[in-house]
Amino acid sequence: MSTSELSWSGWGDPAQATPLPEAITELLRSGLGVDRPTPVPDSIDQVTLTPIRLGTAPATACTEIVGAEHARSDHDARVRHARGKSTLDLLALRAGRPIAAPDLILTPASHAEVLAILGVCTEHRVAVVPFGGGTSVVGGLVPDSDGFAGWVAIDLRRLDALVSLDEQSRLATLGPGLRGPAAETLLAQRGYTIGHFPQSFEYATLGGFAAARSSGQSSAGYGRFDDLVMGLQVATPAGTLVLGRAPKSAAGPDLRQLMLGSEGSLGVITELTLRIRPAPPHRVYDGWRLPDFDRGLAVVRALIQDGPVPTVLRLSDEAETALGLARPERLGSGGDGGCLAIVGFEGTEADVAVTRTAASRVLEAAGGRPVAEAGEGWVHGRFAGPYLRDALLDAGALVETLETVTFWRSVRGLYDAVTTAVRDDLTAQGTPPVILCHVSHVYPAGASLYFTIACAQLPQPSEQWLRAKHAATAAILAAGGSITHHHGVGRDHREGLAQEIGELGMRVLAGIKATVDPAGILNPGILITPQSSLNLR
Amino acid sequence: MSTSELSWSGWGDPAQATPLPEAITELLRSGLGVDRPTPVPDSIDQVTLTPIRLGTAPATACTEIVGAEHARSDHDARVRHARGKSTLDLLALRAGRPIAAPDLILTPASHAEVLAILGVCTEHRVAVVPFGGGTSVVGGLVPDSDGFAGWVAIDLRRLDALVSLDEQSRLATLGPGLRGPAAETLLAQRGYTIGHFPQSFEYATLGGFAAARSSGQSSAGYGRFDDLVMGLQVATPAGTLVLGRAPKSAAGPDLRQLMLGSEGSLGVITELTLRIRPAPPHRVYDGWRLPDFDRGLAVVRALIQDGPVPTVLRLSDEAETALGLARPERLGSGGDGGCLAIVGFEGTEADVAVTRTAASRVLEAAGGRPVAEAGEGWVHGRFAGPYLRDALLDAGALVETLETVTFWRSVRGLYDAVTTAVRDDLTAQGTPPVILCHVSHVYPAGASLYFTIACAQLPQPSEQWLRAKHAATAAILAAGGSITHHHGVGRDHREGLAQEIGELGMRVLAGIKATVDPAGILNPGILITPQSSLNLR
Repeated sequence: MSTSELSWSGWGDPAQATPLPEAITELLRSGLGVDRPTPVPDSIDQVTLTPIRLGTAPATACTEIVGAEHARSDHDARVRHARGKSTLDLLALRAGRPIAAPDLILTPASHAEVLAILGVCTEHRVAVVPFGGGTSVVGGLVPDSDGFAGWVAIDLRRLDALVSLDEQSRLATLGPGLRGPAAETLLAQRGYTIGHFPQSFEYATLGGFAAARSSGQSSAGYGRFDDLVMGLQVATPAGTLVLGRAPKSAAGPDLRQLMLGSEGSLGVITELTLRIRPAPPHRVYDGWRLPDFDRGLAVVRALIQDGPVPTVLRLSDEAETALGLARPERLGSGGDGGCLAIVGFEGTEADVAVTRTAASRVLEAAGGRPVAEAGEGWVHGRFAGPYLRDALLDAGALVETLETVTFWRSVRGLYDAVTTAVRDDLTAQGTPPVILCHVSHVYPAGASLYFTIACAQLPQPSEQWLRAKHAATAAILAAGGSITHHHGVGRDHREGLAQEIGELGMRVLAGIKATVDPAGILNPGILITPQSSLNLR
Repeated sequence: MSTSELSWSGWGDPAQATPLPEAITELLRSGLGVDRPTPVPDSIDQVTLTPIRLGTAPATACTEIVGAEHARSDHDARVRHARGKSTLDLLALRAGRPIAAPDLILTPASHAEVLAILGVCTEHRVAVVPFGGGTSVVGGLVPDSDGFAGWVAIDLRRLDALVSLDEQSRLATLGPGLRGPAAETLLAQRGYTIGHFPQSFEYATLGGFAAARSSGQSSAGYGRFDDLVMGLQVATPAGTLVLGRAPKSAAGPDLRQLMLGSEGSLGVITELTLRIRPAPPHRVYDGWRLPDFDRGLAVVRALIQDGPVPTVLRLSDEAETALGLARPERLGSGGDGGCLAIVGFEGTEADVAVTRTAASRVLEAAGGRPVAEAGEGWVHGRFAGPYLRDALLDAGALVETLETVTFWRSVRGLYDAVTTAVRDDLTAQGTPPVILCHVSHVYPAGASLYFTIACAQLPQPSEQWLRAKHAATAAILAAGGSITHHHGVGRDHREGLAQEIGELGMRVLAGIKATVDPAGILNPGILITPQSSLNLR
């Protein structure tokens, strides 16, 4: 597990990157026609940025709030805060054209400092981007800053305290700037865990998990991150919101649920109170082969609806299983027929034994057969996916993921619709893809689908991907799915959001923004369409 | 179980009312000094109403939408839609002074008709109160209609269909006007249950459960009603919202959570998609005596945090246990020392056996002892509480309930603070009360407290109660609790809401209302303070 600075040009810690297995390189060449490695910038200095626009007055005022040592506008800091980690972001950094970047990066140390920064930026009409781990894959860090007097990033890394721990209520109050591993380490010292392990775990922050409604790989057992948030302190240009006096209440609409998923467009989360659990003394992860995807879907649905409910429950389709993507240690080795399910159990040894035995019975009755070592292989490689994408991009492939969620009745139709739409589009572009899918999160009423798509890069790979992505989004909406299960809206899904929640839903969001952020400085262009551009009646 | 029309002057079906046990009458006399029965109006005709104000133009337009047979302005209909079922409501009906009532009661048959009514009422600036079962206990049906051109109630009883049932996703789409028993009957015919059984179950409606964030007696097993809502169709003056494409999504803030708890002030719920479960073939309810309230709190917390989690989990304090309020069949019989817990299990016979055995072990280890027949006594009498209140009011007692919720660490302090505040206030008024309490709903992070308060009536009982209630609310807020766990905000908790979510939180609500209800016609004065009256910066 890495705790290094996130690579500016790709994922994670460059020291952890591993070369592609020869089998994959061969597959890329023979299967997808990928044979031209793409150039990667050697150094961060090769990235060109658009000029700094922020005037002296707001820059000075902001710098005074945090202190000069916590205000940066050097090239390195600007590049590292310019983009997230979508394939489009990585391609933009490789394309050689100037990219937009924040003018000033501030690292405040308190809620009061965040409020003060918002005050200065409101006064001077400066766009503000709250910045956690920088791991957005939906363009959530790139504001529409035209028309603003500059772009300031608020990097929350110094808000990294375990503020308090309430063992009786099993609650921890934590700073939003804590990355996943740091938060878990603080809690492990007291015997607790949050239990939230998304693929971005090593670099993403608690504030980002909340702002983007993250979902972790153990969501069947621990819940999504939005299920874990019991309290929020939020700094907005209009003042402070302190939300959450109880797990649940009937005191009107749940305003926590407005801030969860607000992606920095309604406020800056400066403190979170989270459910915690005793760290499980025992964990075991099993692999099961199901005969096919339909029977796999039926059995994971049976487990989540009728129990016993495992802590981890995932199901790869035939293509993903064949490629071994669920087991990075065996990547490209082939040979696994059917569909691989990962079924994990955490808890006391006795509880794990009981639940595992009962779940195994359900899986066996559905035609499942144990796959030795597959579960442990998955858990050891489960944060490796983004490294693989970097290597594939380097090799000249276009690789990206997309995800959706719907009710069970529509899951199979959604799977077929997305697969068909993406395959048809990329094939029409002359680059027939490999499309892999897994069910990553299950609920009694429905499930998410997570697609990985790879094909040969065209000379304009961003345009190539945007076209395929547009086809996927249209297919998702037509099949009844949500545009995103856990990646968020950002810039990339904004059009889809309008179709999903309707014009009135968008106006509701714009109305909320007008209250908490009247100057519209927070993450402009992310999630919310400004009220002025909506067709107001 | 009754399915009659709700009594206009009290709770439920008058035929089901039972006289007070002699022991209770004696207790009222000797313990509280209650010895003067209060006069009850014999007939609905004795109630006087303020005159009809609605003009001919809006009345005619509204009537044309639904048809003359579904538009009433007769005395009987007006009285039955004037008030909810709080003690303040019942006292107002008994006081003999003219009370405000809707001018026109409409029973639309479709979403389109509701939208059309909202259009007419917006045009003519007529206050609109969405009306489900009429069981509000927080003044949620009494709008601030001054300044409006009248008051129209939209009674949703004709929106009572089981629209669709999706067995694969375990979802049912239902009309908001269905009362609890009717909805359960429709689903039972297909083998399913919603599992939502609040004390108001027999008369309250699905739309009301959602609009007021109801919580049922089986919430430990089935969740609160807001946990069960997967989709909503809402008619607003600004148009229709259709929300919920999946159990969970990262497509921005969860707008379902805005409409849940909106109490008719943001829109009229015209369709709900709810989680359903297979009807449990086996149910068993046990009674356990715990040595005292603190040890009782510790064991219900242990069960909800570490399992096994029962379907029903309640705990009465010493006073409520002594009075036998948890066991209406033994009311006033005394003799039960300690604190009575009700622990219920529903599911397959095998699952119930396993969970019950394991829970019993936890209860025994905490010093619990089984109380024969107490569980079955509770389940048979669980909808009887409101009948008892009517009888107590008739006998001359002032009786009301109030509830709150907080995190576990604050539960005991909240209990003490509310008890002390209410006792001190009513004692200072010369009417020392009996105060009973139970934990009705538990979560891993916290629990609700439900208080029943009884004392002798003063000549101005409404003022007497309002003073005590104000003291209770202040104590709740100071002790960190929420002003309501499941009764809602209505009129009665509006001041407390402003303290709970802050001035900015109130402005957020007002901003949302300005978007969906620009004329402010929906339930004016309920939940949301109009934006114009807030101190806008």
